[in-house]
Amino acid sequence: MDWRAEIEAAAGRIEGHVRRTPVMEITLGGHAVEIKLEHLQHTASFKARGAFNSLIKGPVPKGGVVAASGGNHGAAVGYAAASLGIPAQIFVPEMAGPSKIALIERTGAGLTVVPGQYADALAAALAYEKETGAMQVHAYDAVNTLAGQGTLAREWDAQGLTADTVLIAVGGGGLIGGALAWWQGARKVVAVEPETSCSLHAALKAGGPVDVEVSGVAANALGARRHGQLSYELAQSQGIPSMLVSDDAITEAQKLLWREGRQLVEPAGATALAALLSGAYRPEPGERVAVLLCGANPAPEPI
Amino acid sequence: MDWRAEIEAAAGRIEGHVRRTPVMEITLGGHAVEIKLEHLQHTASFKARGAFNSLIKGPVPKGGVVAASGGNHGAAVGYAAASLGIPAQIFVPEMAGPSKIALIERTGAGLTVVPGQYADALAAALAYEKETGAMQVHAYDAVNTLAGQGTLAREWDAQGLTADTVLIAVGGGGLIGGALAWWQGARKVVAVEPETSCSLHAALKAGGPVDVEVSGVAANALGARRHGQLSYELAQSQGIPSMLVSDDAITEAQKLLWREGRQLVEPAGATALAALLSGAYRPEPGERVAVLLCGANPAPEPI
Repeated sequence: MDWRAEIEAAAGRIEGHVRRTPVMEITLGGHAVEIKLEHLQHTASFKARGAFNSLIKGPVPKGGVVAASGGNHGAAVGYAAASLGIPAQIFVPEMAGPSKIALIERTGAGLTVVPGQYADALAAALAYEKETGAMQVHAYDAVNTLAGQGTLAREWDAQGLTADTVLIAVGGGGLIGGALAWWQGARKVVAVEPETSCSLHAALKAGGPVDVEVSGVAANALGARRHGQLSYELAQSQGIPSMLVSDDAITEAQKLLWREGRQLVEPAGATALAALLSGAYRPEPGERVAVLLCGANPAPEPI
Repeated sequence: MDWRAEIEAAAGRIEGHVRRTPVMEITLGGHAVEIKLEHLQHTASFKARGAFNSLIKGPVPKGGVVAASGGNHGAAVGYAAASLGIPAQIFVPEMAGPSKIALIERTGAGLTVVPGQYADALAAALAYEKETGAMQVHAYDAVNTLAGQGTLAREWDAQGLTADTVLIAVGGGGLIGGALAWWQGARKVVAVEPETSCSLHAALKAGGPVDVEVSGVAANALGARRHGQLSYELAQSQGIPSMLVSDDAITEAQKLLWREGRQLVEPAGATALAALLSGAYRPEPGERVAVLLCGANPAPEPI
């Protein structure tokens, strides 16, 4: 797979449809870091990149597209579909929560709330695909999704990123897979997962994706029961470090981002920073560190 | 007054002490605009620029500095003073509200809450200056304050601002005065004030600063009873347009900034955008518009 070519093609496809999100240098909790404010993307997460790439590349059948999602991917697919005039049906688990469900509803997509977790929504979406012939837009384990998310790393490079090391929160692996596919070792990528939802950590330990239990404050974004095969292979072959953080550390990082940085993100959006603040990841002296802020659909809504 | 030289000198003085705040292109309420996220500055407003410029330029007497403020200027002076090891005494009116009062307290500055409005806090700060010999750091009507705020416009230019027109919220005039001092007509600057706190609008009408009643949702940031002389002269001589917006329009803009842009600002921080969304300011076809987001100390705190 020529991932760099896939990502270059994706960047061309989605240009004008997604926001070029800002970057800044900032000191947070005493750590000087570069951050990318990708939570300012359409529908408040990086997911819009993979969604637009998948839908524009298509081909999309008359029945439209279907997606399963913890919430953010569904909102992104709904938004991209509305923007492109494509019918969309989204399946989310109850744990998506009212903010994300309302966000999906506002896109105009069809929405089914499924009891259980992301994996249950995925089963329902697969059944819908079989029944209707709609195009499945997988939240993370698909080349077009990964390549779309990879445009984020490409864009950050173009914005002058200097970091040696980039901390990235991990769910099913779409975001980190895209970053690994772009950087290919040019920067050190550190995977950060909640202790309570750690499909990549488990996969690296087991030698391949395995089912894990998911729960905790970031489960409606990072709670994939089984890690994506594409992302696993990239992470395993590059031998990247995999860190776990507690729910308390995530909540603390979320509060600090507001207090010191005036960014209100959801728990998943603060998970990468939590690794730095909690000491789970300790940079070497002189090591330049970047932190990706990836999602801002907190519940409850602040206003 | 060679304002450009003052601002250049200020920029050199405060470099490394203030954040270079990000810019982005975004569509809000159907309007494609450039925004500068100056509410991500230290203590969540542009005020840190003028504060650092004033304190570094000094000379600061042994008794330190004193400032009166609706809240944001006090927080900025407190932060700058702590950062530079200078004692600071801040006077705020009750209307500053709990979020801003807590923010000032966290800087470690001495704090006195005065019954009434900003003008009452200013009277108390002037008495304190007389009594102690502390250096007064005026919130808006002082050359060093204006020159510090002017570094924002200089920085935005350096970041590639393309706009013909920049919408700026106005209180006592420190921010818009700094922008007018930098741009000197190179860009069209539009002054936006709440109907309920409009000292510049009244000054332009009366041919000079006059006392106005202040109230409304943005009064703890924009509620100057009398506009600054320096800012008035710049605004009057450049003949800039002055717009008023309702409190409802400000609240709507604040909500839209969260919903579409995931920026949680205080009412003053959404006031400039309100002029565009409400139609108070209607750009010509093809006119490129920029909107400055200037403050993010909302009450209550979101988390």
